[in-house]
Amino acid sequence: MFETSTQIRVRYAETDQMNVVYYGNYAQYFEVARAESIRELGITYKDMEAMGIIMPVVEMHCKFLRSAQYDDLLTVKTWLKELPAGHKIEFHHEVYNEKNKLLTSGKVILYFIHAQTKEKTQMPLVLQEKLQPFFNHSS
Amino acid sequence: MFETSTQIRVRYAETDQMNVVYYGNYAQYFEVARAESIRELGITYKDMEAMGIIMPVVEMHCKFLRSAQYDDLLTVKTWLKELPAGHKIEFHHEVYNEKNKLLTSGKVILYFIHAQTKEKTQMPLVLQEKLQPFFNHSS
Amino acid sequence: MFETSTQIRVRYAETDQMNVVYYGNYAQYFEVARAESIRELGITYKDMEAMGIIMPVVEMHCKFLRSAQYDDLLTVKTWLKELPAGHKIEFHHEVYNEKNKLLTSGKVILYFIHAQTKEKTQMPLVLQEKLQPFFNHSS
Amino acid sequence: MFETSTQIRVRYAETDQMNVVYYGNYAQYFEVARAESIRELGITYKDMEAMGIIMPVVEMHCKFLRSAQYDDLLTVKTWLKELPAGHKIEFHHEVYNEKNKLLTSGKVILYFIHAQTKEKTQMPLVLQEKLQPFFNHSS
Repeated sequence: MFETSTQIRVRYAETDQMNVVYYGNYAQYFEVARAESIRELGITYKDMEAMGIIMPVVEMHCKFLRSAQYDDLLTVKTWLKELPAGHKIEFHHEVYNEKNKLLTSGKVILYFIHAQTKEKTQMPLVLQEKLQPFFNHSS
Repeated sequence: MFETSTQIRVRYAETDQMNVVYYGNYAQYFEVARAESIRELGITYKDMEAMGIIMPVVEMHCKFLRSAQYDDLLTVKTWLKELPAGHKIEFHHEVYNEKNKLLTSGKVILYFIHAQTKEKTQMPLVLQEKLQPFFNHSS
Repeated sequence: MFETSTQIRVRYAETDQMNVVYYGNYAQYFEVARAESIRELGITYKDMEAMGIIMPVVEMHCKFLRSAQYDDLLTVKTWLKELPAGHKIEFHHEVYNEKNKLLTSGKVILYFIHAQTKEKTQMPLVLQEKLQPFFNHSS
Repeated sequence: MFETSTQIRVRYAETDQMNVVYYGNYAQYFEVARAESIRELGITYKDMEAMGIIMPVVEMHCKFLRSAQYDDLLTVKTWLKELPAGHKIEFHHEVYNEKNKLLTSGKVILYFIHAQTKEKTQMPLVLQEKLQPFFNHSS
């Protein structure tokens, strides 16, 4: 398993008149957490685009259990359960507040796509090599 | 079944550097479509809040099949498969472009909550009475 | 003078915990109003990009006098005081609520830029021809 | 003078199809920078709201000189030229990229308002005491 943890401070803009973070903003929190997760491997999503690979989101699932509030310092846990095979990668997320209460859980599925041809492609080798060690099981 | 259809023009702000609508913005499109859906019944979500009922989203599921682009005039179909019973309401959505291609499908589950006590409550009677006729089955 | 008027319904996502539209969202309202303003001339901003012209914003000024609220049906008045000369166009905006109260006034300056070279350029002839009649003065 | 510096990483959601940060998103960057600026004084904007003071923005002015791009680590400089007197506070901002190029400059004026009465009020004493030392001039 590959797991990382990212902190995000809730912006005023992200609240709505229910005094909580608008549900649509978790997609951004997941995006930030994914980007930081890849960065910890020593590569960035920006590098991937420079290599001609884009990663559109094809599926998102969220459960909103408790609300996040203005100025909360959230912790977003992000993990891959398995090494991606083929053109698909599946990120799992959990958002916690400072009291370590689980607020939101989510799953986001993305494809690896050639920017030019828009065809599905494999995960770039450089990313695969970075991820491999996290999924090596002794016999 | 209760079904409505709402048109939304894609804003420049809603695109990202992949030249498509950012995946997180569909939550807003679904929100607009829900609000217009209720408005067609002769009541507004704003009225509901004035009555002391808030409706936080507790679950969202989306599949992104094709991308929406700047200035597209999207059609968001919104429907309730069944008359809500209890504190829960489940909206189904499909987003189509002008060529009638299905771009995104989604499901959003919300709770009816007392604004003051934050306790779960039933769907307000006024909404129930408006919705009932759409779910009357002969025999 | 060339003047148009565009209606925008306030989304829940656009409110913040002050129960009003977040100040940063007026930039989007101005964008929508500009796009509709150009559309009324029979050309779209999308067409302009297809012609290889992009229009980045270089200046924005806003005064927030009264607040907009959820579900308000806003009217955004948009006008050009003068026919753009050179690479610059200056849009004026006023946002009114349904009681015809002025909420926000703003000015947005954009440049005409070649998408490829990123060099400043003139307003496209097609747009100039559409706008000219609004600025013809007798004697 | 009171001056602080805040770093913000550009999110994918904040870009548009011009491959740069959408102009409307700088209002959020300024908000984050203001919040962090106050936090460095040992008080938060959240505390202020808890004390019954809200701070709506009444004016914003921005100049966009160069564009910010995805994943840029921006530095937002924030300063008060003078100790606020009366109900008004004026923040100045400059946004720099990692090459120390000035991208955007802005000014945001806010009022101190009683949350309950919506009347203008003075800057809270606690904030005044924190700020005073930065504006003490030796004769």
